[in-house]
Amino acid sequence: MTTSITGAVTVKEAQYFVGTLRVRQREEAASRATSSLQSIQILDDSDPQALATVLDSYDTFLFDCDGVLWRGSALLPGSTRTLALLRAQGKRLFFVTNNSSKSRAEYVAKFTKLNIPVDISEIVPSSWAAAEYVRIQYPEVKKAFVIGSQGLVDELNLVGVTSLCGADQSYATRCFATESDFLSAEIDKDVTAVLCGWDLTFNFAKLSLASLYLQRKPTAAFIATNKDAFDKLADRNIPGNGCAVAALEQSVGREAVNVGKPSRWLINYLLRTYNLNPRRTLVIGDRLDTDIQLGIAGGCDTVLVGTGCTTTEDALLEQEARKVGMPTYVLSHVGAFSLSAIPSKN
Amino acid sequence: MTTSITGAVTVKEAQYFVGTLRVRQREEAASRATSSLQSIQILDDSDPQALATVLDSYDTFLFDCDGVLWRGSALLPGSTRTLALLRAQGKRLFFVTNNSSKSRAEYVAKFTKLNIPVDISEIVPSSWAAAEYVRIQYPEVKKAFVIGSQGLVDELNLVGVTSLCGADQSYATRCFATESDFLSAEIDKDVTAVLCGWDLTFNFAKLSLASLYLQRKPTAAFIATNKDAFDKLADRNIPGNGCAVAALEQSVGREAVNVGKPSRWLINYLLRTYNLNPRRTLVIGDRLDTDIQLGIAGGCDTVLVGTGCTTTEDALLEQEARKVGMPTYVLSHVGAFSLSAIPSKN
Repeated sequence: MTTSITGAVTVKEAQYFVGTLRVRQREEAASRATSSLQSIQILDDSDPQALATVLDSYDTFLFDCDGVLWRGSALLPGSTRTLALLRAQGKRLFFVTNNSSKSRAEYVAKFTKLNIPVDISEIVPSSWAAAEYVRIQYPEVKKAFVIGSQGLVDELNLVGVTSLCGADQSYATRCFATESDFLSAEIDKDVTAVLCGWDLTFNFAKLSLASLYLQRKPTAAFIATNKDAFDKLADRNIPGNGCAVAALEQSVGREAVNVGKPSRWLINYLLRTYNLNPRRTLVIGDRLDTDIQLGIAGGCDTVLVGTGCTTTEDALLEQEARKVGMPTYVLSHVGAFSLSAIPSKN
Repeated sequence: MTTSITGAVTVKEAQYFVGTLRVRQREEAASRATSSLQSIQILDDSDPQALATVLDSYDTFLFDCDGVLWRGSALLPGSTRTLALLRAQGKRLFFVTNNSSKSRAEYVAKFTKLNIPVDISEIVPSSWAAAEYVRIQYPEVKKAFVIGSQGLVDELNLVGVTSLCGADQSYATRCFATESDFLSAEIDKDVTAVLCGWDLTFNFAKLSLASLYLQRKPTAAFIATNKDAFDKLADRNIPGNGCAVAALEQSVGREAVNVGKPSRWLINYLLRTYNLNPRRTLVIGDRLDTDIQLGIAGGCDTVLVGTGCTTTEDALLEQEARKVGMPTYVLSHVGAFSLSAIPSKN
């Protein structure tokens, strides 16, 4: 999702995280030789040759957007230069985001506004992933109940699926004042899918109606654009789409399919559709639970950058605690890759 | 919570459930001698002596209300007679409900309207349980952020805790139209507890604000009046308080304490406060996941009746699948106990 962070993290700060991580890694190595942290390669901003070697090892780059290329509406330092360099080298680029509020067309507009050249086929928001999932897995679905926004509704429309709710403001203000209101709520018999995406106007009425559609048809498609627990906004965490999904799952005792990161379906779909070699594909992101796990699910190498959701150190501590997969590389910021082609200045 | 069920289940239907269960029990016994279902005593409506023997074995009776004594606003057959009989026998009665929308005072009004004599000290709604939990475990709390209704707010007031949100309609219609709205939302520094109870006007703004209070103070009291996944209303399931709780828990990565059924804290609190002997206490309810597990948690015997949320057969099948504790007895309806003192008519 789009975040507008006040107090931007500088490249220097990001480098500090990597520095701290190095100290910690040495301590770990001393006390616990088997520490799995040792398997992570720390990429050094001041070593253009090492960075160039990494880039040479991959043909395709899957970038997360917010916290990697930009933060909110502000580009992160060097990210455009890195993208330009990769294009000049003939690399294949994809931009994979769990933000479901925008359609691919809306993302093209955003990239263009930020002066990043992009083709619509390179953009993989979870709104589009959800629509593709419906198109492929549930070709019979013609109408869906959607918790989410216009971007998701638009992508569904493009695959021939009409929506109920979605960005319709009458649902945003709808309220079941009594249980009778709930009992008399009308159910559209043509709805055979429920999608749950990012929605600032999520409410009990939407939850109840989505739940009713899933009760009525236990085999209905039940799709989450992502299950992120929260997103970082300045010093606050805003509840993520995973919260609405958890409420809905709880109400029906059934799990939604997550088509966003780190979904195995998503990475396999991208690898297969675009005929990508996972061993030559690098996934770059700021989140362990989504970006890095997506890459691991697809058998791809991964880069964790320190410019986003958490510091790389915090992220790795968290990862170690949860015993989930580690990134292949840690890098201060994605702009560092642009230094691989120019002489080191420091 | 209060349910208004259309198409009431008759006593005959409830007896049918027990009959079906008996058939099933025989089949089970034939094919699988160790079936744990065998340990459940089926109480026979037409055997007043057996029913009298059961009543004689207990001094204290904990009744669930909705689905046991009444359904919505309609009393279930014989429930008042059973309560009158128990009072005549000098038994101690408690009415324990996960409905947090009413205060004890409001319940007294409801009992009175239904012509059931009751003392306020006998009523244990989860609104009161939550207030007691705060009073005992968090005596320093003076202000709470409350997802819930006036009944919960009233009970908190009685233990000296003021509330934010609660039944305040401005929160019901509040909407974070943008992420800036979320970022600029004001936080009351005096709030040191978050309570989540039944709320038909649950929405993203309430979720976000509750989440912010829990983020700000990770040691804040975090209390759920119950975690019921859903409640049955006619042929529909309405999302229960457990859905809002799940969303909130997801947003902060922290579990709420459940003070409603089947909370071990609740049953132990009742046993200790009223000096009850668990071996002489019988818990009677229509739900496995709340009523029966509450009794088991307290070391009490339990009765599952077939007049509520599910048929007793469905309930036991579900219970077997989930490998949770079984009830001590199964009974068609709570009114059957009133037959223990009068000659069998059929």
